Formats: sequence, structure tokens, C-alpha cells
Amino acid sequence: MREAYQSDLRHIVDDLVDMAEMVGTALEGATTALLEGDLALAERVVTADPHLDARQVELDAKAVELLARQSPVATDLRLLVATLRMSSSLERMGDLAAHVALIARRAHPELAVPTEHRDQIARMSVLGSAALQAASEVIESRDLALAAQVEKRDDELDELMLTISREISGSDEDTYTNAQVIDLTLLIRFYERIGDHAVSLVRRIGFLVTGDSLDALGDGVDVQVF
Amino acid sequence: MREAYQSDLRHIVDDLVDMAEMVGTALEGATTALLEGDLALAERVVTADPHLDARQVELDAKAVELLARQSPVATDLRLLVATLRMSSSLERMGDLAAHVALIARRAHPELAVPTEHRDQIARMSVLGSAALQAASEVIESRDLALAAQVEKRDDELDELMLTISREISGSDEDTYTNAQVIDLTLLIRFYERIGDHAVSLVRRIGFLVTGDSLDALGDGVDVQVF
Repeated sequence: MREAYQSDLRHIVDDLVDMAEMVGTALEGATTALLEGDLALAERVVTADPHLDARQVELDAKAVELLARQSPVATDLRLLVATLRMSSSLERMGDLAAHVALIARRAHPELAVPTEHRDQIARMSVLGSAALQAASEVIESRDLALAAQVEKRDDELDELMLTISREISGSDEDTYTNAQVIDLTLLIRFYERIGDHAVSLVRRIGFLVTGDSLDALGDGVDVQVF
Repeated sequence: MREAYQSDLRHIVDDLVDMAEMVGTALEGATTALLEGDLALAERVVTADPHLDARQVELDAKAVELLARQSPVATDLRLLVATLRMSSSLERMGDLAAHVALIARRAHPELAVPTEHRDQIARMSVLGSAALQAASEVIESRDLALAAQVEKRDDELDELMLTISREISGSDEDTYTNAQVIDLTLLIRFYERIGDHAVSLVRRIGFLVTGDSLDALGDGVDVQVF
């Protein structure tokens, strides 16, 4: 029974890593759909999102069941509590990727991202993917050294969001249509929030590993940069 | 010892209601600062946000400690799990209110919201406050009848976001500066997300009361309306 319990705990980590992979797929697909104007791909990302939501529901149910059945303490308890938080962050990251795909779909057959911002948006997506991948490795290995990489990518995401925002504000009024400004504002925010959630993931693992109180965990949000 | 435990559980509900009240204050203050161009008030909202974050940290620590010390089952376990989720939603709602205040601050001495959208923004804030108030009552009373009110206000928030967004997209290009479009896009999204989180709060109480699986809890996000 002890072995089955340890196995259950291990499966929970595997489930989190699986969810992270699903989010990664959604994010890359959404960005490709956005930059290429690929309607079918955008639709696939949108319709795949409920599967990620379902995975969260299952994972949370497993965690709660283990809390109920095993009355865990110490590290195991912290893992289960951390799992509830992390599954929520991952589900939200999936929603954000689906929102990117929805913008691609709404703009079709136009491209939502004007040529001058394509590289920046592509960069934001790459940073988000890298942050997510590193966070997934931290979840699996508990190697906090990788956590610094996630924070770094999130910082760069914050800077890109500000840069693009300033470029739009500072440009001539006829450079963009209002619809383009709306879409770009939403897009840069979605990618920036994906970075915030990746930071939140690694901070939860930090709590798990060190046992420190949840001080300064927040959800990776820097109030000065929304 | 049993009495102390029941008292601890009761205090957790009180703490959640306190947090909701702090969020309500932040939201009303932020909107007033935004519409009145009140810089000092905007600053107060921004500097108060870390206090709400600290309340979440304390509340989560209490919940985890009860999970560790008491090995609760059934309803008590569900309450503690729900508490972790709800404190997170409330903290995020506080962040969103602070983001509104940051926009007010950034726009100062201009007003971020053009005259033609003042009533709509005021309405979005009122809806958010009402949703939050109803959610707080559901947390305290577990009266799920109030939950329908929250969903209704969230629906209206979604509609207002779409309406304002369409008005901006459909207007002449010289009606707004790019900066105004950016700020309005962010603002309507912040208010809309506050509504989503209020829905998430009541769904957690629903889970608590009915014991149903976490099906369809999500975080109140309708993927079609971001």
C-alpha cells in the first residue's frame, strides 16, 4: 500500500509534466496559426483546450483523493498542495494559448500581426515556450538552478510587452487600425501572462523543495508591469 | 482541541470574507481614481495591494497547517482545498484592481477613459463589485442561490467588453489615440477578468457544498470571450 501511494505521487508529477507538454503544443500551434494565418490550426488549438481543462480536473481529483485517503504530511503534503496550484497555472496557460488562437481566427483572412511586429511576437512565443519547458524540467527534476532561466525569460517578456506597447503609442495614428491595436495589446498581454505563470510554477516547486512559507510566491505578477 | 479546530475553520472563512472586502475597496478606489483622475487615490490602491498578497500568504499557511495537523476528511478537507483556490482568485482580483489604478496613474494628468466610455467603464466596475459582494456572501453563507447573480453579472461584463471593443474597432481612426485604445483594451479586460474570478469563487463554494467533482469549475473563463 505504501508502494502504491508512492507510485500515485510519482504519477502526479508525470501528469503535471504531461499537462505542460500539452500547453507547449498549444502555444506553438497558436503562434504559428497567428503568424501564418492558418485557420485550421487555430481551430485545432481552440478545440484542444477543453482536453487540457479535463486533465486539470482529473489531476486535482487525484490530489484531493490522496489528501483524503493518505493524510499526508511534510513533503508529500506540500507536493499535493503545490499540485493544485500548478495544475491551475497550467490550465490558465492553456487558456491564454487558446486566446492567441482565437485572435488568429478572428483576424482571418487578415493577419492580426503587422509585418513590423512579427519578429517580436515570434520572440515572445519562443520565450514563453522556453520558460514553460524549463518550468516543466523543474517540476520533474526539482532542480532549482533552472528556475533562474524561467525568471530571466519572464523579464524579457515583460520588456518586450513594454517595448511593443510604446512603439504603438508613439507611432503615427494611421500606422495601425484600431482593431490592430486592440489585437496587439491583447496578444502581448497573453504572452506576458504565460511568462508570469511559468514563474509561478517554479516558485511552487521552490516552496516544495525548501519548505519555505509561501512568502513572495504570488503568481509571478510584477504589479508595475501588467 | 476539537473546538479549537472548528474555530480555526471558521476563521478561515472570516479571512476569505476579509480578503474579499479588501478587494472590493481596491476595485472601487481604482475605478474612482481612473474616472476622476485622482493620482493620490491611485497610488493608495497600488501600495495597498501587497497587503492583500500578504493576507493570501497567511491564509494559505493556515490552511496548509490545518491539512498537516488535523488530517481532515470530507467537508473540512474540501473547505481547505477550496480555500487555497479562493485565496488565489481573490489575490488575483486585487492585482487586477491595482492594474486599473496603474493605468489611471500612467495617464495622469489626462483621463485614460474618454467621455463617451465613462458610463460603460463605471458600469463594468459596479458589476465587478456586485459580483464580488455576492461571491463573498456565498462564501460566508454557502447560499448557492446567490451564485446565479454572480454568473449574470459576469455575462454582462463579457457583453460590455465586446461592445466597447467593437465600438473602438468600428470607429473612425482619429476618434482615439493609440494610447487610448491600448488603455481601454487593457481596462475592459481587467474588469472582465474580475468577473471571471468572481464566478470561479462561487463555483468553488458549489464544489464545497455539493461535494461534486471539480467538473466544469475551470476559472470562469469562457474561451469564446476573452
